[in-house]
Amino acid sequence: MSYNLLKGKRGVIFGALNDKSIAWKVAEKAVEEGAIITLSNTPVAVRMGEVSQLGEKLNAEVIPADATNIEDLEMVFQRSMEVLGGKIDFVLHSIGMSPNVRKKRLYDDIDYDLLGKTLDISAISFHKMIQAAKKLDAIAEYGSILALSYIAAQRTMFGYNDMADAKALLESIARSFGYIYGREKHVRINTISQSPTATTAGSGVKGMDSLMDFANRMSPLGNATAEECADYCIMMFSDLSRKVTMQNLFHDGGFSSMGMSLRAMDQYEKSFDLYRNADGTIQYG
Amino acid sequence: MSYNLLKGKRGVIFGALNDKSIAWKVAEKAVEEGAIITLSNTPVAVRMGEVSQLGEKLNAEVIPADATNIEDLEMVFQRSMEVLGGKIDFVLHSIGMSPNVRKKRLYDDIDYDLLGKTLDISAISFHKMIQAAKKLDAIAEYGSILALSYIAAQRTMFGYNDMADAKALLESIARSFGYIYGREKHVRINTISQSPTATTAGSGVKGMDSLMDFANRMSPLGNATAEECADYCIMMFSDLSRKVTMQNLFHDGGFSSMGMSLRAMDQYEKSFDLYRNADGTIQYG
Amino acid sequence: MSYNLLKGKRGVIFGALNDKSIAWKVAEKAVEEGAIITLSNTPVAVRMGEVSQLGEKLNAEVIPADATNIEDLEMVFQRSMEVLGGKIDFVLHSIGMSPNVRKKRLYDDIDYDLLGKTLDISAISFHKMIQAAKKLDAIAEYGSILALSYIAAQRTMFGYNDMADAKALLESIARSFGYIYGREKHVRINTISQSPTATTAGSGVKGMDSLMDFANRMSPLGNATAEECADYCIMMFSDLSRKVTMQNLFHDGGFSSMGMSLRAMDQYEKSFDLYRNADGTIQYG
Amino acid sequence: MSYNLLKGKRGVIFGALNDKSIAWKVAEKAVEEGAIITLSNTPVAVRMGEVSQLGEKLNAEVIPADATNIEDLEMVFQRSMEVLGGKIDFVLHSIGMSPNVRKKRLYDDIDYDLLGKTLDISAISFHKMIQAAKKLDAIAEYGSILALSYIAAQRTMFGYNDMADAKALLESIARSFGYIYGREKHVRINTISQSPTATTAGSGVKGMDSLMDFANRMSPLGNATAEECADYCIMMFSDLSRKVTMQNLFHDGGFSSMGMSLRAMDQYEKSFDLYRNADGTIQYG
Repeated sequence: MSYNLLKGKRGVIFGALNDKSIAWKVAEKAVEEGAIITLSNTPVAVRMGEVSQLGEKLNAEVIPADATNIEDLEMVFQRSMEVLGGKIDFVLHSIGMSPNVRKKRLYDDIDYDLLGKTLDISAISFHKMIQAAKKLDAIAEYGSILALSYIAAQRTMFGYNDMADAKALLESIARSFGYIYGREKHVRINTISQSPTATTAGSGVKGMDSLMDFANRMSPLGNATAEECADYCIMMFSDLSRKVTMQNLFHDGGFSSMGMSLRAMDQYEKSFDLYRNADGTIQYG
Repeated sequence: MSYNLLKGKRGVIFGALNDKSIAWKVAEKAVEEGAIITLSNTPVAVRMGEVSQLGEKLNAEVIPADATNIEDLEMVFQRSMEVLGGKIDFVLHSIGMSPNVRKKRLYDDIDYDLLGKTLDISAISFHKMIQAAKKLDAIAEYGSILALSYIAAQRTMFGYNDMADAKALLESIARSFGYIYGREKHVRINTISQSPTATTAGSGVKGMDSLMDFANRMSPLGNATAEECADYCIMMFSDLSRKVTMQNLFHDGGFSSMGMSLRAMDQYEKSFDLYRNADGTIQYG
Repeated sequence: MSYNLLKGKRGVIFGALNDKSIAWKVAEKAVEEGAIITLSNTPVAVRMGEVSQLGEKLNAEVIPADATNIEDLEMVFQRSMEVLGGKIDFVLHSIGMSPNVRKKRLYDDIDYDLLGKTLDISAISFHKMIQAAKKLDAIAEYGSILALSYIAAQRTMFGYNDMADAKALLESIARSFGYIYGREKHVRINTISQSPTATTAGSGVKGMDSLMDFANRMSPLGNATAEECADYCIMMFSDLSRKVTMQNLFHDGGFSSMGMSLRAMDQYEKSFDLYRNADGTIQYG
Repeated sequence: MSYNLLKGKRGVIFGALNDKSIAWKVAEKAVEEGAIITLSNTPVAVRMGEVSQLGEKLNAEVIPADATNIEDLEMVFQRSMEVLGGKIDFVLHSIGMSPNVRKKRLYDDIDYDLLGKTLDISAISFHKMIQAAKKLDAIAEYGSILALSYIAAQRTMFGYNDMADAKALLESIARSFGYIYGREKHVRINTISQSPTATTAGSGVKGMDSLMDFANRMSPLGNATAEECADYCIMMFSDLSRKVTMQNLFHDGGFSSMGMSLRAMDQYEKSFDLYRNADGTIQYG
């Protein structure tokens, strides 16, 4: 079902990898809603992955680029303006990766060069993207820029490691640049803090399944899916959210406002079942 | 311009008074977007005000009711289901009033009966509304309930008095009931924290003009208008925000994430101009 | 061990019931740290409970009073100034009770008269206390006023019911009055958001034991005890925190900043052990 | 006046430059309160500055070190344990600098190498410090680690530039490492978010005087001084705050919880006086 919410709008979507990616779903929905778009991902991801098929399906040019490289980013925006025929109305940043997590470096034994890379790829790339676009005056008045974040920016999740710090930095960049770009061009910049989602990117995090089960039982509406996240992104790209900026918006079925649900606690209590005495009291180890 | 975002949906709008009211704009936009609605306000407001004209214009029945009275609220939902032909998909609570502010009782000299009224009218009415609706099973699965709030719930504004406490209570009720109604019926409950708006309700607050000027200069996108707020409400009523619940959403041009803008500080600095020495230094009193 | 942090200071402690009460520990520590104090609780609590023994032990007058009654509160401050020989330097509000919880009314079936009582006892009493004290000019310059809160004010906990709303209101009152009393008399007003604590008051909440186990495993430092909370209160009463006001301070072993700990998740995962297939995969019901 | 709050404790203070520095005041107070300490700053700062005099006065060894260099940091902790005779009980990180601000690079024209330096000096150094200490097992059980932050981490301040992002990162590191170090050694890690303070470091920020005037009028207790901040740090180093971790604690006279004060608004309104018509209405430009 389409509402034509993005009719006539031009967008650039960074980070679509495969059909599990949130960015993939956003690209599909954006086109459904009437937008024309370009897609960008790293040269390796473009070569190896399925993003080219998505491009064909959506009639969207795929522009390989390293999102940590200014020249590449400038090229993405210049090329996008050319093929789309004008300034860009919306941008999605769905990029994140921690070499420390990949290399299983614990948070109290992180490699600082790798930390630099985590921050550069997952957070500073957002600044570079916006600065590059702004220097080219590539974003239309009242444009909308989004990045995807996660609640680890506010609350520590074991195993999430330096990605938590990267997300905190990402959200700060959204605020800092939201001020600058808002006052000058009415461009709004926000982050969406999404439920844990079974994407390829999410699968590197330790204990992901149990965490997703817990989050799901905690959230009154359950975990939000990638598709539902895409719906919310569309809203934030549309003209109906023109005065929302510098915000981190939780899209998580209510998780962020829960302390403890009955459903999650019921499950938690079962963990003691094996260790329960005949009289029902818990037999601690 | 319409997107048919609320096509086939049924709504109840509480609190439209005149064409400056946010609720008035929401009612208009909801109908534009394809919804059918009822309107409710106090019997006095209905008799004296212009809400009946709005009802005629939008082909919406106006149901007088005291939002602090359970029976009245039950009647509103029952009647609404009758005239709209089914369960309710969305509800707006735009109700707030402080008798302490009206009677110019300062916050350190408030009357506790009046405080009880402030809380009952401005916050507990939201609980009563939802509880009444839930007991009647009047809200459709995946329904959306919104109340309008203000940043005074988090940060003290001089002169806002016990309304700040009422808004904090209102936002808490949205969370508490969001959990219950979410897990049972997927109904989402949120508050929108709107810029100071030149409505009839807002005009009782001391120093409103200067405050609005300051908020406007602080916010990179400027203050959000009542109409823009209505746009955001429509989004939150639509199917595109189905997994957002228990949130307080700032719709304020960025104000909530600003510490100090150059524009506001430039204006602030002018306040010292009358007291400046020949050499430019400030001559303090 | 004593530091004489409150030497020469006068305090009023509301809400000590028995030696599990946080207020009880605060009273003991305050006297240890050199303060002279009075104690107050309801007439019933004073008659039935052990607060009189505490009073004797600490050489502190026990003043029975209903904290929802202005005249009673005025009397407490007047009498306290008399027996302590001067204005009051610090006040603890450790009062909370929900008749809806006691009567097992669920949150979507609450009785509004009882809600009024929950709010009056647990939150508005704090406003009444401060307003009464301020009218009598009973608090010394740079005085410190504290109330005990709980994270349910921000994040919904099943079973906590309307106490969550009461705590949100309580924290709002701390901010609102903190502004007024701060600018006029440098009096600071804060709330301490304490770990779930095994007090008599806490024992009414459903599933308290499991919740405490979970909170304990989530918190890197474990749950904070009543005694440790008392230590923190002493700090906040001392001259070392003179510029801290209008804050809600988490004293919870880190719980409030945790999304998920390994320890809690390890325990949670055990809940699936009974339902695990031979190959280790979880067999969902 | 001394309470012996830190009697027998060993501390390391990073970042004392001159007697305006918060770290300087913390060092003085820590020694007053019975601690023995070492001081560390960059080799240049040690050579050029007054920190050596402070060291002499406090009988504290000054250890020159680059806080972005792991080996230097290891050396600081090793040497500190040697001269102080045991593990370290408390650490202060009061380090921050933005080469982008110094070189007047605006936020939409920042140099990314310089951004890397801002983050490394102002935030990652905190991680390096803690990781280095942990690898040496240099912090005693129940130790306390603090860093100084600023509200720009949450709310954008014009001219604060990439320091805002650095502070957001710093606060995230405190949470992330607070979890790890807390669960293993009961070490607590917090940040104190201090009022704008007239230190040498603060003086690089644009419009600092007006901002401090505004913050002062907004805060019911006025801006907190460096000395008052030192008092609060002492509290957080003492045994009275053992269960507080992963928190960002505002020490700002109430500023963070203010939306608008009457005092600040009165001043703001004067800015329109020059442009007022005879009838009192404002004559906009």
